[in-house]
Amino acid sequence: MPDQPYDALCIGNAIVDIMARTEDDFLVGNGLIKGTMHLIDAERAETLYAAMGPAIEASGGSAGNTAAGIASLGGSAAFIGKVADDALGTFYRHDMTAAGIAFATAPLIGGAPTARSMILITPDGERTMNTYLGACQDLGPDDIDRATVAAARVTYLEGYLWDPPAAKEAFRRAADYAHEAGREVSLTLSDPFCVDRFRDEFLELLRSGTVDILFANDSELRSLYKTGSLDAAIEAVRHDCRLSAVTVGADGSIVVEGGDVTRVPAVATDDVEDLTGAGDLYAAGFLFGLARAMSREDAARLGALAATEVIGHIGPRPARSLEALAAEAGFRL
Amino acid sequence: MPDQPYDALCIGNAIVDIMARTEDDFLVGNGLIKGTMHLIDAERAETLYAAMGPAIEASGGSAGNTAAGIASLGGSAAFIGKVADDALGTFYRHDMTAAGIAFATAPLIGGAPTARSMILITPDGERTMNTYLGACQDLGPDDIDRATVAAARVTYLEGYLWDPPAAKEAFRRAADYAHEAGREVSLTLSDPFCVDRFRDEFLELLRSGTVDILFANDSELRSLYKTGSLDAAIEAVRHDCRLSAVTVGADGSIVVEGGDVTRVPAVATDDVEDLTGAGDLYAAGFLFGLARAMSREDAARLGALAATEVIGHIGPRPARSLEALAAEAGFRL
Repeated sequence: MPDQPYDALCIGNAIVDIMARTEDDFLVGNGLIKGTMHLIDAERAETLYAAMGPAIEASGGSAGNTAAGIASLGGSAAFIGKVADDALGTFYRHDMTAAGIAFATAPLIGGAPTARSMILITPDGERTMNTYLGACQDLGPDDIDRATVAAARVTYLEGYLWDPPAAKEAFRRAADYAHEAGREVSLTLSDPFCVDRFRDEFLELLRSGTVDILFANDSELRSLYKTGSLDAAIEAVRHDCRLSAVTVGADGSIVVEGGDVTRVPAVATDDVEDLTGAGDLYAAGFLFGLARAMSREDAARLGALAATEVIGHIGPRPARSLEALAAEAGFRL
Repeated sequence: MPDQPYDALCIGNAIVDIMARTEDDFLVGNGLIKGTMHLIDAERAETLYAAMGPAIEASGGSAGNTAAGIASLGGSAAFIGKVADDALGTFYRHDMTAAGIAFATAPLIGGAPTARSMILITPDGERTMNTYLGACQDLGPDDIDRATVAAARVTYLEGYLWDPPAAKEAFRRAADYAHEAGREVSLTLSDPFCVDRFRDEFLELLRSGTVDILFANDSELRSLYKTGSLDAAIEAVRHDCRLSAVTVGADGSIVVEGGDVTRVPAVATDDVEDLTGAGDLYAAGFLFGLARAMSREDAARLGALAATEVIGHIGPRPARSLEALAAEAGFRL
């Protein structure tokens, strides 16, 4: 256990991103829904890869990106996720540990390869993801280390963990350990179709108090409550979860806590290259802000700052020190 | 053989770049000479990788980058280089073929892994390279396909091919095939220390007429002639090679052909993120210009345009269509 508690333990699918710019008609021609995540098998992965353009690779995965954001802010983060003992797994582990993130999950040996997501970036900066889960299918409850969970102020879990069957058991075990240690549990809803696949289970996680802090974007939250109205969804979530942070793209975010609904603007930018990681980095800033006892509003502003950095370049993790950017923007970290 | 000849066949080390931003003191602390390429063994690769920060990966290699530049300009290019049958080799092959480059070299099976270069990018945009050659050591003369060489207006070879011993035989065979088919041969000097390792052989290549078109930057050319004076080096090279294109960083380039010495300015830019690929993309523009019967000066201007694109972002290959950028800049391709 570290001398200081981790600002967050992030648990999620350990995925290497394979990113290429593309035109919108490629999405249409391949039956892809823009801005969402598609789960694909090995065969589909091969076909799609053969069709896509030249790419670059970087470690990604939603919760992994959030851990990298917290580390870039100067915080301490741990990560639990499953890679294979292959070249991409080596890259992934390197990128986490080189960022100062504690990452002790044993690799999968002799099984499926490290997960990869083919991310197609359209000229508007929107990203459309095609994920082959590979080794992530083997993340299970035995990968959850109680001491690490207990050492983290908050355990942050991605909704995507509901896709590989054993991982949801890991999720529940982590939540139990966290609450037993008097820590908090946070969930991001990840993707509107992921919400559609697991709506009842996600609602149960909120209503049972398994989740203390919820992250969602507007389409995910509306999907959760099957409503076209964001206001209706916010009215619903304030009864279901103690604290929610809802991102609404260029309109910033909305922090919902009981009767308080606070709107926080985004950081204005003309430089949107690649939206990959925007929500993940918002969560990093918000969670780090809470860990540093900031007000909800300041935490949301820090989230917006972190998200703005990551959408200004290709790749899902910060290219510059968020700690330095936050200091320039007047935050006292 | 293609219906239309290839604008160029590029032959070089097939390398995946592993790129990380770093501070200058990391270079000093690891005994690295800024702006140059260091050859490293597997053990050193592991040590250095463990010490470097989070990275992103992209297909690179000097000649491979040049082929990608020609393809991005709308030209036709072929590539010969050796990857292994591993994950990085799969990425490399994909990135070449997805760019429209003919790449038929058989992969190395059961041998060393695909080559990788750890590229450290300092805040000034300079890159310092640390290359583990791996499978490139197995490129040999049997990998040179005579029909492909004969189909290319020019066969472009990197000086780095002199490092893996069998590759220099491949180089010589390719040059022979090219001249037998009435085609031209071009060489880039690659790196001042590479020139230092093989000075006599490179001079022999020029003086014997094996090389028709030479690319070098100022430090490489001065290294070739062991002089501190660029003017002296230019005076020397105009006797040794029919046509030379010498890049001089922000001062543009100098085209040397017999008694003609033409200076061509760089494209002014404040946006230098990463110098990786600058020389490779200059060569792409220049060779493509020659293939399209441009004047030497216009070909050098096209080279400058291509170089400016690639230094504006992380990664050694164009992120935008060079054909579109050239059209915007008034080139008629």
